[in-house]
Amino acid sequence: MADNLGITVKKEKDFSEWYTQVIQKAELADIRYNVKGFLVFQPWSVLSMEKMYKYLEKVLQKKGHKPYWYPTLIPERNFKLESSHIAGFTPEVFWVTSHGDNQPIEEKLALRPTSETAFYQMFSYWIRSYRDLPFKTYQRAQVFRYETKATRPFLRSREFHWVETHCAHATKEDAMKQVYEDMNTTKEVLHDIYGLPFMFFERPEWDKFPGAERTFAADVLNPDGKVIQQPSTHLLKQSFAKAFNVTYKDKEEKDQFVWITCYGPAISRIFASVIIVHGDDKGLRFPWKIAPVEIVIAVIKPNEELLKKAEKIKEKFQEQDFSVEIDATERTFGEKCFFWELKGVPIRIELGEKELKENKLGLFRRDLSKREKVEEKDLVKEVKNIAQEFDKNLTEQADALFNNKISPAKDKKSLKAGIESGKIVKSEFCSVANEGRTCAEWIEKETQAFVRGTRLDETEKPKGNCIICEKKATALVYIARSY
Amino acid sequence: MADNLGITVKKEKDFSEWYTQVIQKAELADIRYNVKGFLVFQPWSVLSMEKMYKYLEKVLQKKGHKPYWYPTLIPERNFKLESSHIAGFTPEVFWVTSHGDNQPIEEKLALRPTSETAFYQMFSYWIRSYRDLPFKTYQRAQVFRYETKATRPFLRSREFHWVETHCAHATKEDAMKQVYEDMNTTKEVLHDIYGLPFMFFERPEWDKFPGAERTFAADVLNPDGKVIQQPSTHLLKQSFAKAFNVTYKDKEEKDQFVWITCYGPAISRIFASVIIVHGDDKGLRFPWKIAPVEIVIAVIKPNEELLKKAEKIKEKFQEQDFSVEIDATERTFGEKCFFWELKGVPIRIELGEKELKENKLGLFRRDLSKREKVEEKDLVKEVKNIAQEFDKNLTEQADALFNNKISPAKDKKSLKAGIESGKIVKSEFCSVANEGRTCAEWIEKETQAFVRGTRLDETEKPKGNCIICEKKATALVYIARSY
Repeated sequence: MADNLGITVKKEKDFSEWYTQVIQKAELADIRYNVKGFLVFQPWSVLSMEKMYKYLEKVLQKKGHKPYWYPTLIPERNFKLESSHIAGFTPEVFWVTSHGDNQPIEEKLALRPTSETAFYQMFSYWIRSYRDLPFKTYQRAQVFRYETKATRPFLRSREFHWVETHCAHATKEDAMKQVYEDMNTTKEVLHDIYGLPFMFFERPEWDKFPGAERTFAADVLNPDGKVIQQPSTHLLKQSFAKAFNVTYKDKEEKDQFVWITCYGPAISRIFASVIIVHGDDKGLRFPWKIAPVEIVIAVIKPNEELLKKAEKIKEKFQEQDFSVEIDATERTFGEKCFFWELKGVPIRIELGEKELKENKLGLFRRDLSKREKVEEKDLVKEVKNIAQEFDKNLTEQADALFNNKISPAKDKKSLKAGIESGKIVKSEFCSVANEGRTCAEWIEKETQAFVRGTRLDETEKPKGNCIICEKKATALVYIARSY
Repeated sequence: MADNLGITVKKEKDFSEWYTQVIQKAELADIRYNVKGFLVFQPWSVLSMEKMYKYLEKVLQKKGHKPYWYPTLIPERNFKLESSHIAGFTPEVFWVTSHGDNQPIEEKLALRPTSETAFYQMFSYWIRSYRDLPFKTYQRAQVFRYETKATRPFLRSREFHWVETHCAHATKEDAMKQVYEDMNTTKEVLHDIYGLPFMFFERPEWDKFPGAERTFAADVLNPDGKVIQQPSTHLLKQSFAKAFNVTYKDKEEKDQFVWITCYGPAISRIFASVIIVHGDDKGLRFPWKIAPVEIVIAVIKPNEELLKKAEKIKEKFQEQDFSVEIDATERTFGEKCFFWELKGVPIRIELGEKELKENKLGLFRRDLSKREKVEEKDLVKEVKNIAQEFDKNLTEQADALFNNKISPAKDKKSLKAGIESGKIVKSEFCSVANEGRTCAEWIEKETQAFVRGTRLDETEKPKGNCIICEKKATALVYIARSY
């Protein structure tokens, strides 16, 4: 069913076209669904994203988050309770207003763009005492946003698949601890499982989530020098707790408002980074842990005997809990190699008459693009060895590229040069409070780049002056173009 | 947080109240969410339903179904393409008509009540040749129906969580094979994993899915004598293939329309049957495989030493992949027993000063409601033994009850008596084609029961006459009240 001609452009040269081709040719998503900004996720991406969900949820549950399923619909009145939230989100809300044959419903209902206003009203029923805190929840869900910017599969669609965590805490200090925990979760999952390097920033005052006191987020870098915001985490203003009356009795039996944090890893968008960060000119390269299929057995000129052998090998691997597919199609061997490299399967086993006679099979690994001959009896052992080091290899390659893309700037000129060459530029900056906004706007206008914020994962102190206004710097910031 | 007083009514005596109390007191779902017919699923149900999904999806994937994620929204024009489908579903559809600040959207969009009209337009892009068939897909999703009947948590809500499979076949015969496969899936998952007895019927002509040529469904029985329709599977009319132009080239290169089947196990509704079928007067009883937590360690008068011991025991079990919780709350031991039996945890381990001294712990199993003393060193072994037979015990108990509830009727009187005593009544019947409708309506009027159909899982031939109109019977049907 797929067009097997392979990717016709180089990833570094024409990243945008490379991305479009990979998604179509590897059958990750079909954009021909007839509602603008919505797409159909196909098995090859769903199988991987399901694994991504599994790891993320496992880590969240281990850290004490309990899973919920909230309704997809939120009544308009809930939105109205927190004013900055409604101002921020209203333009993006899809509204359900009728049912059946044009009959109006009792109250306008929002397709959730995010679920703060659904969760916190329920918190007010469930949280009673300091003993209930921290109250750590999450849900796996889809959210809906009427994007006006151009949509791109996985990167930005009007419906996306995410996890949102919502936690209530007794104090602001506890809430900040949760932010650090969220940052560590991002590291444990996005970096250590999915193999994605990132920096974790506190966003400047002018780039906060609607209703947040402080906003933090991970930025992942694309080869075109643009960053993508991946999980963000917010220390919300107490206005949310007040709007939904979420209080607890402290040890002195006094009523206190809780402090709320929320964290939103968008699996379908993180999957975009998996495609982009690990892919190469031939197509996808899946980390082992989240590969839709781990091993493909490419049968060269299939016949009955070869297929029997292929089935036997498949069973051997399945006994060891590997996921395996056999390619016994009419495609030529060359086409099969092309196709499965494009699909990003970690291991390809090659089996034909020659291999059968010699009792040695071809073994191709996608992390290093290396082929070897392996005796049949050693096959499982060898694949196990590769599985052990596969993700480490992909992650190290990604880390090396990422670290090479951070560039300090001492003045406007080197800032511009850094941004132009597709880097994340590190710079002294006057202020990430509102006073700094003018300098940020100058940067945006001159370089189309944005002040992404200050690092939360490292303590970095400014020493010099802002490279824009030359006032004394109060922050070391990172500047990059973005999606 | 929970009201721990236990269930105050008997399941058999006041089933409806029993059901309401279990859901609230075991913290399965909260009905206080402020949109009518929508509810919040709490961790204790979500953890179980996630396991239910896992088993179901594993079986589907093993049988060759590939996972997709389709958009939640379906444009109105898709609905209009198949006339019986739009007639059947329109009354239940929620419509998205605007975005942002009351701005109309380009086209009315339905919150999917089911996804035939989303899937099949994509099938037309993907299916080319007989080699692509059968084309077997599924998605895990929520669906939305503006129910006008009274809603009840899990049983009937306006949003529910399900799996829908959609398959395209070359011939009608192949499609019918799929129906049988779906029936077997229902057995393998609903009965063999979730422990739910059911009968699998072909529905009478007048009770078919909108757009189906034939409709089949599993019925599960409640203690109040009403059946719940669980997964249904449909052999659709070719009108769907024609409406969306889903064709394939056969071996002679001739264009043919496909035959489509779909199958819809609603996890959140099947969960209702799990509650109802396995529960007892004390509350829930989870089958081991789908228990949110398998083991609770109830610490009697907790102190530091006991908690340390409890942690050690927990770790031992976790090493063997059991899920364990420690109850070290201030509740009395009696309250803890009450609470965890209500919650339906399969195993409770009891640990207090006495147990510590004697090195023998209390071990309570929920399947047989039995308590024994077990030496600490034998604990894991003993729990493993119980885990082995736990689900078999629950399933056998459920099967025995179910089989006892099938009652043959030879005339109108015994039909009425059977229905009144809460049974599924088996009877000779004139016809499940439209000719039989009058008799079915008589039954509905006189007994508030419905002709559920003829068995697909057993071949049963009629010998006598219809017990209503006394014409020669052409079918053996089952009659029951229903939700």
